[in-house]
Amino acid sequence: MEILFRTAESGDLEALIHLLADDPLGTQREDISHPINQRYVESFKAIRQDPNNQLIVATVENRVIGMLQITFIPYLTHIGTWRCQVEGVRIHKEYRGKGLGKMLLDYATQEAKTKGCKIIQLTSDKQRPDALKFYTNLGFKATHEGFKKSI
Amino acid sequence: MEILFRTAESGDLEALIHLLADDPLGTQREDISHPINQRYVESFKAIRQDPNNQLIVATVENRVIGMLQITFIPYLTHIGTWRCQVEGVRIHKEYRGKGLGKMLLDYATQEAKTKGCKIIQLTSDKQRPDALKFYTNLGFKATHEGFKKSI
Repeated sequence: MEILFRTAESGDLEALIHLLADDPLGTQREDISHPINQRYVESFKAIRQDPNNQLIVATVENRVIGMLQITFIPYLTHIGTWRCQVEGVRIHKEYRGKGLGKMLLDYATQEAKTKGCKIIQLTSDKQRPDALKFYTNLGFKATHEGFKKSI
Repeated sequence: MEILFRTAESGDLEALIHLLADDPLGTQREDISHPINQRYVESFKAIRQDPNNQLIVATVENRVIGMLQITFIPYLTHIGTWRCQVEGVRIHKEYRGKGLGKMLLDYATQEAKTKGCKIIQLTSDKQRPDALKFYTNLGFKATHEGFKKSI
């Protein structure tokens, strides 16, 4: 099984929405209607146009089977350290348990290093015990509380 | 006491570094040497040049007494929702306990709404019990674990 990683293209968008929706939390909050909800199209365009945002897909035989988004953020803290933030990590259910998540995170980490980031960070919902264990096993430390608020 | 909020300018940088360093965690990891460490100068420039990043300062009689950074991030998740991420919230020790932190967060929330963000988020170190209480009182929910890893 050859897995390729690359930046997402517009032809991937519907597959990405399906990956986000095929998830216990995602199914409650995503919209898989066709044609694609215009809000996805607009956000996809904004991500593509921003040099500090990158949507990465993993493919097998041109089929999108994994995704994540990274954001490079310049901060003053830690003597002006850039960080790489990871969000929306998903692996297609047929491909879980094969180490693909780790490969995707490793790819993101390489991109982060190339950009000069010294910290990689993410938040993971406390309702996802498997994900919490996954990130801990990858060497992430849950040193922070992740606060969210709808506005 | 009239408090003004505005985007940080280059003349504020040294005051901002001192705010970041005057803190139990910050004192271990910031550099207040003069002239300013060039890494701060570079990051400050990157923040200023990025339309999705904004350093906000609170001033009293032209003195910087508070700060935070916001980052606007376009995501596919939640049907293509933009989020506003807050980092580096600091209030000068002489001005704490006067409601300035809330005013600063309210200002950031307004900026986020203007940008079209539907979620405001941040992570707070578990070693900062007062900060955790502060964000909870402002209506933030600690639904996520905040993972970090040095790379």
